[in-house]
Amino acid sequence: MSLPQTNVRPPFNVTRASHLVLTSRDLAKARDFYTEVVGLKVSDETATTIHLRGLEERAHHSLTLKRTKEEPACERVGFRVFEEEDLEKAKAHFDRCGIPAKFVNVPFQGRTLHLADTAGTPLEFCARMKTLPRMQTRTHEHKGAGALRMDHFQVLTPDVVSAASFYTELGFRVSDYYCAAAGRIIGIFMHRKDNPHDMVFLTRAGPRFHHFGYIVPEMHHVVRALDCAGNLGFGENIEHGPGRHGHGHSYYVYLRDPDGHRLELLLPAIQIIDIDDEPMRYDVKPGNTNLWGLPPPRSWFEECSPLIGAKVTAPDVQGEPLTLEKYLFAKGDAAKPEPVKKRA
Amino acid sequence: MSLPQTNVRPPFNVTRASHLVLTSRDLAKARDFYTEVVGLKVSDETATTIHLRGLEERAHHSLTLKRTKEEPACERVGFRVFEEEDLEKAKAHFDRCGIPAKFVNVPFQGRTLHLADTAGTPLEFCARMKTLPRMQTRTHEHKGAGALRMDHFQVLTPDVVSAASFYTELGFRVSDYYCAAAGRIIGIFMHRKDNPHDMVFLTRAGPRFHHFGYIVPEMHHVVRALDCAGNLGFGENIEHGPGRHGHGHSYYVYLRDPDGHRLELLLPAIQIIDIDDEPMRYDVKPGNTNLWGLPPPRSWFEECSPLIGAKVTAPDVQGEPLTLEKYLFAKGDAAKPEPVKKRA
Amino acid sequence: MSLPQTNVRPPFNVTRASHLVLTSRDLAKARDFYTEVVGLKVSDETATTIHLRGLEERAHHSLTLKRTKEEPACERVGFRVFEEEDLEKAKAHFDRCGIPAKFVNVPFQGRTLHLADTAGTPLEFCARMKTLPRMQTRTHEHKGAGALRMDHFQVLTPDVVSAASFYTELGFRVSDYYCAAAGRIIGIFMHRKDNPHDMVFLTRAGPRFHHFGYIVPEMHHVVRALDCAGNLGFGENIEHGPGRHGHGHSYYVYLRDPDGHRLELLLPAIQIIDIDDEPMRYDVKPGNTNLWGLPPPRSWFEECSPLIGAKVTAPDVQGEPLTLEKYLFAKGDAAKPEPVKKRA
Amino acid sequence: MSLPQTNVRPPFNVTRASHLVLTSRDLAKARDFYTEVVGLKVSDETATTIHLRGLEERAHHSLTLKRTKEEPACERVGFRVFEEEDLEKAKAHFDRCGIPAKFVNVPFQGRTLHLADTAGTPLEFCARMKTLPRMQTRTHEHKGAGALRMDHFQVLTPDVVSAASFYTELGFRVSDYYCAAAGRIIGIFMHRKDNPHDMVFLTRAGPRFHHFGYIVPEMHHVVRALDCAGNLGFGENIEHGPGRHGHGHSYYVYLRDPDGHRLELLLPAIQIIDIDDEPMRYDVKPGNTNLWGLPPPRSWFEECSPLIGAKVTAPDVQGEPLTLEKYLFAKGDAAKPEPVKKRA
Repeated sequence: MSLPQTNVRPPFNVTRASHLVLTSRDLAKARDFYTEVVGLKVSDETATTIHLRGLEERAHHSLTLKRTKEEPACERVGFRVFEEEDLEKAKAHFDRCGIPAKFVNVPFQGRTLHLADTAGTPLEFCARMKTLPRMQTRTHEHKGAGALRMDHFQVLTPDVVSAASFYTELGFRVSDYYCAAAGRIIGIFMHRKDNPHDMVFLTRAGPRFHHFGYIVPEMHHVVRALDCAGNLGFGENIEHGPGRHGHGHSYYVYLRDPDGHRLELLLPAIQIIDIDDEPMRYDVKPGNTNLWGLPPPRSWFEECSPLIGAKVTAPDVQGEPLTLEKYLFAKGDAAKPEPVKKRA
Repeated sequence: MSLPQTNVRPPFNVTRASHLVLTSRDLAKARDFYTEVVGLKVSDETATTIHLRGLEERAHHSLTLKRTKEEPACERVGFRVFEEEDLEKAKAHFDRCGIPAKFVNVPFQGRTLHLADTAGTPLEFCARMKTLPRMQTRTHEHKGAGALRMDHFQVLTPDVVSAASFYTELGFRVSDYYCAAAGRIIGIFMHRKDNPHDMVFLTRAGPRFHHFGYIVPEMHHVVRALDCAGNLGFGENIEHGPGRHGHGHSYYVYLRDPDGHRLELLLPAIQIIDIDDEPMRYDVKPGNTNLWGLPPPRSWFEECSPLIGAKVTAPDVQGEPLTLEKYLFAKGDAAKPEPVKKRA
Repeated sequence: MSLPQTNVRPPFNVTRASHLVLTSRDLAKARDFYTEVVGLKVSDETATTIHLRGLEERAHHSLTLKRTKEEPACERVGFRVFEEEDLEKAKAHFDRCGIPAKFVNVPFQGRTLHLADTAGTPLEFCARMKTLPRMQTRTHEHKGAGALRMDHFQVLTPDVVSAASFYTELGFRVSDYYCAAAGRIIGIFMHRKDNPHDMVFLTRAGPRFHHFGYIVPEMHHVVRALDCAGNLGFGENIEHGPGRHGHGHSYYVYLRDPDGHRLELLLPAIQIIDIDDEPMRYDVKPGNTNLWGLPPPRSWFEECSPLIGAKVTAPDVQGEPLTLEKYLFAKGDAAKPEPVKKRA
Repeated sequence: MSLPQTNVRPPFNVTRASHLVLTSRDLAKARDFYTEVVGLKVSDETATTIHLRGLEERAHHSLTLKRTKEEPACERVGFRVFEEEDLEKAKAHFDRCGIPAKFVNVPFQGRTLHLADTAGTPLEFCARMKTLPRMQTRTHEHKGAGALRMDHFQVLTPDVVSAASFYTELGFRVSDYYCAAAGRIIGIFMHRKDNPHDMVFLTRAGPRFHHFGYIVPEMHHVVRALDCAGNLGFGENIEHGPGRHGHGHSYYVYLRDPDGHRLELLLPAIQIIDIDDEPMRYDVKPGNTNLWGLPPPRSWFEECSPLIGAKVTAPDVQGEPLTLEKYLFAKGDAAKPEPVKKRA
């Protein structure tokens, strides 16, 4: 089982993970969460749709919330290509590959190409969006985490090597990958922009949308977000962290939005640009893989947002990740009992 | 059941929680933990004893570690009185009360008075210690949390009102207290210095030593401590947090030292000085009492350091605190199962 | 010339520097500055008076702004005494000393005693104030520096030893003092609460009110305050800093409010409680006395708020402090000229 | 006068500003400054050369210091190209342009191409370097600013448009540019990587090397660097800041190393990737252009490191930037005099 190779002469120029469309059962509550806890700015708002962007984003939106009465889901995952002509090249490429792709109109976006990756993730590519002024220096208006910009997506899929090869063919490079016993690859981090992750696949039943990540400036912004969450009735929405990833990309916290969608707030990750930056292999060992902090709870491993239109299948081999529940159970067995139970 | 009243004309002037004596099975490992993770400075060191102080402490030591081959324990909890003559007044006071108290010689300390409080906690009072230069501006030498100074002690005892009355008689004021059903007082925070806590009692089997707290300057120092813990093999010593206390005193993290003694790293708490600062009552409700962050694990509620020479008894009514284990178990029952378990 | 000795059995119990009354020519602008940049909360507001408090203050106000058409001035400097009966003791003490003191009614305060110290600073003492809920955990509502609480006052006076002796007689302890050539004392820091400063005197023409200090939680709050100042039209109000005091108490920045009153935002200072904490002497040497950061500009040394009713006199010996202007001038003389001034 | 246009089909793929060669009269002192204040790691060290890298850099060096007995100078400015074959393409490109370029051997680097840009800046390009483990998670070993990675270079030159066109021809995009009266372009910020600056030109006598920038993670790392500078005898090396740039890229501080070379420590800048990110124009107006903080001192505008082998010429029109000296002088004229100069 080997890592897919990056095509260094890709058919078109994808530049970055850029935007996301989620559905919500309660737009008002979701708006409250994303503006007051995450700190996004509302760019546009109607009775059925809210467009939000991070504080430094000149692009009109990185998160679109659409009202639904169904189960909340992830409707589409968006990437930028560099130029309009990359869209034509993309269409030609997918036609050659036999992957159905069609141009659609999306509000506030330039020409947009819809398709699904080979894992089944619904994607869209565009080169242009309406622009708005960056807000990152207007500190007096910042709230919550003061999230700066969309950073990456994580999708669960039963076969990560197959799923990743769609992206490496488009020029995505692998920054990190996780191996289980016998070198079986169970996680792949890929990037086009200058940090380790635009798209991440982990092995589990899928395709399902696991989380998206927004960059926040400093650790105290994470703390302010958690204070705001606690004060505004979103305290239970903190699922995991704050902690620090074991492979060292960054500090993180995982939240669940009011519809159950998971997002990560993370500090700016390391820069990866050079040809010398060979993929790093991490062999998953028993125990907590974080530099510090408790392992993620079971919900982090098992719960996801459905991807609209995607058919979910399970992997051949189920992982047995160390959940917080297992960790505590194992620890409890070794614990000292209370010395005295009754007053003498 | 009523809160003990502060004696505003106390028999002598206790000024603050100041120092602590713990025993350790492995002084080298404990030294490593306290200097590299907590960031204390070694003031003196022999084959059997290490004296440590916080970065801003002019006092020779706030933590004394003594080598033991027995179960690690808390040997003594130390308070400062203002002047030498307060020690004489203290001796006279305890003689009047029929509490055995004797003067002893303790290295690097002025005349020192030994006794036990009515809960059974072994105490000592002194007015003077050898002084050393404060180190808080020598930032280039700071490590880990860069802990500044000893702040408070927490002791478990079956009868907190009785335990607290020993201290209120000495002029300690109550900042906060916790009530369970029917107004039963189960926790009392008391102070002499200008913040909410020098001595804290919680209701459980006791007297047992629950934790001591060191003040750290900023949240990023807490994060550095946790990074250091993770890097230096103390990652499993992080027991609970980082989080924020529900009654708002401060941000915290709880660690266990290599001998299992528990310490809290906390940011500077609020100032309490005025007569207007009436005790605040908190009614303990089901659920997580933190502003944010998971509840403490079972170990936080159950495990303690023994107090040397103290006889432990259990309370009449056992509390049923919400542990992390219970919290996750309750949450798990409501969790969504994974949608697909096998590949079609 | 010797330091005044602290009276350890003071006639009454002053507890802390607590509040301040300033006059303002433009209450709306001052309100904007104190709420958006400093982060104070408005407790009460009329057409002619605004009462403000820090985020953790339970006391109704620590800053009172009164509308004036005259030159903005400092009307009164306020201290807390512990109990109502301390006010009676204070009155008796000042009567004995021949210092005129009278009881007055001040809104939202308990019985209040007015007098002037021997330097001419108009003072007031009270034991009680209306209380309001502390706001320090309501992070989602915090703005600017998120200032927590009033900390200290600094007054200029021609004879600091004489001025300080009024306070040492009331039990104030000296934490630090500055000496010029021949041991002439030119600055005295005194405290009652558990940090180095409630009242500070520096030698210059006076009595004039130099600044008051509010505690802010972390350095990033200082940065947020400066961002807010820059965004809201108060960028020119930053007079000096951020920097770190040479004697190590803390990080600081000095601002001028819209009426020209100077305030310091500083991080929590070190704790000083023990009898062992002897006064620290600093001999002022030529050059910058900060740990880092440029020296203060000339305005910092020369400009002040007048104290209402006080008659200003100059000291016998004028100091020659190193101003930023002098520092740059001296540096400029040693600077390398530009290598080429005209294109060949 | 118009902005040079980016060649979107550049002759070869430059990826980023990556490394720098400076000369030093005192390697031991320079080493002390860069490791203890800036926080770089030594990768290799001999009697005559020190190679240093930032904490997250996998590349062997981003800063090379060479011992000299001459005036300290900047020997060479280094960029990465993506692949080895980009070097061949580069050589062919410069041959076509009539720009002398030759391949040289540089320790720890792959094949390296030397040339000068049209402004006269000595450059080198390479695709590969020896790699070493990233150190960014080894927090317990971090010092000073904990600088993460080399970010950008700033060069002064009499004709910025001409100088910049060399780079735009190589595919550099303009993020920001400054205009003086009549739209005269006096500053151009250009980038290849995903932030606003790899190479910056400002109009003054040149070519001279103004500064290089290292990214630091959070503001408190800047503060720690300044504390370390103050403690270790480098307090006078702080030239300007901390402050925040007016165009909002980031927080900064400028230091002078022991040889007088200037470096900027800055927080991670905004991300710039999209075709929508049109160059931003800033019209320089009288007054302080920072969001907050004093203007830079005269030395910042006038002093530079010579570029070895470059012939310096002056611009046709001299700028009249607002220096700190001018700012204070103008302010002083408006200042209130001290009210009383002599004791009555």
